[in-house]
Amino acid sequence: MRDLLADLADVGRDPRRGGYSRHGFDRAELELREWFTAEALRRDLGVRTDRNGNLWAWWGEPGADAVVTGSHLDSVPGGGAFDGPLGVTTALEAVDVLRAKGFTPARPLAVVVFAEEEGGRFGVPCLGTRLLTGAIDADAARRLTDPDGVTLAEAVADAGLDPARLGRDDEALATVGRFVELHVEQGRGLVDLDAAVGVASSILAHGRWRFTFSGEGNHAGATLLGDRRDPMLPASALVLAARRAASHVDDARATVGRLVPNPGGTNVIASTVDVWLDARAPDSPRTRAVVEEIAAAARAAATEEGCSVTVTEESYGDTVHFDAGLRDELAGVLGGVPALPTGAGHDAGILAAHVPTAMLFVRNPTGVSHAPAEHAEPADCAAGVVALAAALERLAG
Amino acid sequence: MRDLLADLADVGRDPRRGGYSRHGFDRAELELREWFTAEALRRDLGVRTDRNGNLWAWWGEPGADAVVTGSHLDSVPGGGAFDGPLGVTTALEAVDVLRAKGFTPARPLAVVVFAEEEGGRFGVPCLGTRLLTGAIDADAARRLTDPDGVTLAEAVADAGLDPARLGRDDEALATVGRFVELHVEQGRGLVDLDAAVGVASSILAHGRWRFTFSGEGNHAGATLLGDRRDPMLPASALVLAARRAASHVDDARATVGRLVPNPGGTNVIASTVDVWLDARAPDSPRTRAVVEEIAAAARAAATEEGCSVTVTEESYGDTVHFDAGLRDELAGVLGGVPALPTGAGHDAGILAAHVPTAMLFVRNPTGVSHAPAEHAEPADCAAGVVALAAALERLAG
Repeated sequence: MRDLLADLADVGRDPRRGGYSRHGFDRAELELREWFTAEALRRDLGVRTDRNGNLWAWWGEPGADAVVTGSHLDSVPGGGAFDGPLGVTTALEAVDVLRAKGFTPARPLAVVVFAEEEGGRFGVPCLGTRLLTGAIDADAARRLTDPDGVTLAEAVADAGLDPARLGRDDEALATVGRFVELHVEQGRGLVDLDAAVGVASSILAHGRWRFTFSGEGNHAGATLLGDRRDPMLPASALVLAARRAASHVDDARATVGRLVPNPGGTNVIASTVDVWLDARAPDSPRTRAVVEEIAAAARAAATEEGCSVTVTEESYGDTVHFDAGLRDELAGVLGGVPALPTGAGHDAGILAAHVPTAMLFVRNPTGVSHAPAEHAEPADCAAGVVALAAALERLAG
Repeated sequence: MRDLLADLADVGRDPRRGGYSRHGFDRAELELREWFTAEALRRDLGVRTDRNGNLWAWWGEPGADAVVTGSHLDSVPGGGAFDGPLGVTTALEAVDVLRAKGFTPARPLAVVVFAEEEGGRFGVPCLGTRLLTGAIDADAARRLTDPDGVTLAEAVADAGLDPARLGRDDEALATVGRFVELHVEQGRGLVDLDAAVGVASSILAHGRWRFTFSGEGNHAGATLLGDRRDPMLPASALVLAARRAASHVDDARATVGRLVPNPGGTNVIASTVDVWLDARAPDSPRTRAVVEEIAAAARAAATEEGCSVTVTEESYGDTVHFDAGLRDELAGVLGGVPALPTGAGHDAGILAAHVPTAMLFVRNPTGVSHAPAEHAEPADCAAGVVALAAALERLAG
């Protein structure tokens, strides 16, 4: 079996950050879509792009109660090779496995590529499935902008889609009977359990909040300390408060990985600073409590420096408990593989509110993800293909 | 008299940050150089570019013991309209004033535009005068890179210069007998003194240090707090330590206006963070003490988070005391205008180590600089032209 993931090794490399930067509808992601379309057609799968830019490759006629598998091809900035693409390449390879053994699905089966899962360009994760399911308002989505000021409406138009047709797509959603997403594990759960493959049990509640601190831009050398209203001070206080607040709540996480001072000159006191907070906890009340503690610290620090702060919730998703019946059925088919929770969001988490959904995880030797060091051994990836093929055979047989 | 500054109003505007972004040898700065060359030629001044990309416009034959005035045309990112260009446009306007009254200089007189004074592109402020005077090693300068990875050597080659000839230029330096730079004040000293124009007494010791914190990039949702080595935490601790350390020393300032997490994704724990510290104090021992306190805090915070940190001094300049004789002579010619210290660095500060040097300041109603709100009233700018013409008449007469 050819390792399809190797085909993607040169697309969207990021020489500055390391790893890959592939974002929704950018050149690298569009190149990966072309690659996917070619691979699907090579397998006589019928390829369709839905109204929201998600790509579907159908084995047999599209129809209701289909078994759907797949993931995404975009990455975080400077991300690894596996997060997303592994769920797409193993899906195509699982089709090959099933074909080779003469399997014919008794119901429609599709491999899907969802758009902009990481939110690395437009800020909202799982954008393709949020649009598909109506979890994000279409008008709000059209107005999302990337760091260069390009709107989602403009980006999808450039990619040949009609931005007016973005939004909840009941027709496409109605075809999905059950959804299974294979993904590299983001953590060391399977390493500790000595298992190559597992199934997902739950996803933490999680969201993204943008804090904009406003002060007064001025000269870094000529402005007395007492005359300053420097938004970098409350922005930095927020970063430290995030760690402190998360440490008060079991299994919570709060992170600032993106912080942009404006204008960003060495000899310039910033006039504004944008800070993005990623916060997660086992349930909504605890997640909200963590965010409120951080926001209170941010407001207090802003006031102390004579700055103002606004807080915008860019995305939010409650805890996901994957369908227990499907989870147990697949774990059984796979010989009793373990079930694990995860702190990472996925399109499967969005779809789980609408259809029975499951995830398969492939062991990650170091647990590192969203970084160039992300890895899975070839033997474990192959075990993932075998497991996914077995799952699809069971569900579509 | 036509207001030449108005000619520049549309060049290099920064729609994202506001104000102007004009950096050494970028498109906007090259356009401003073309404008300057045309204005100089219109005045029958002979234009030469020196080995380091500084532009000289000569009234009469270039020669030793010249009176030189001028400033720079580049800006900080998102800077104001006055910092730099005002010293160039008032110099050309002062030539017009002197010509109109029939003055003929008894010694060579030049208007100069220095390259990359703000260090907004290559990180080192006063790059043109540092190269000219040998204050920066030419090899080190050639290797400086901009945020896109373009080296100074490549940038000057693109601008038609020979990068091999960058470096100390004794021939050009030998022409400068005395140097006078007019500049918008960066502070409210002249407002408090109710004066339109003043002369400079001194510049604080100041420098730039780049701190690079290294941790482990990973997933913001899937990585337990206890497993993290997040360089954003010590980076934020540094920002807060800078304010604290500067507040311990009279008249010291320490600022972080530029901070770049890598890779910079919302759902990604950064792997590295670059932080630029700008620190200034009345003398070198105090400046060094402030920086050492900040560096110690940064190292302690890095260790606590399991991160490492490296510190690179990108530039440094000791306290400048402008030539007292020249300062008093000009203050007298101008009717006893006040003398003021400044916290801002200038090319005049670099040249002051080599030739008698003076600065004229023009009142700034709010004191804001390095920001779009930077301002000087037209009447005060006109007073600056009159003052600069009187100074040049005295020195070159």
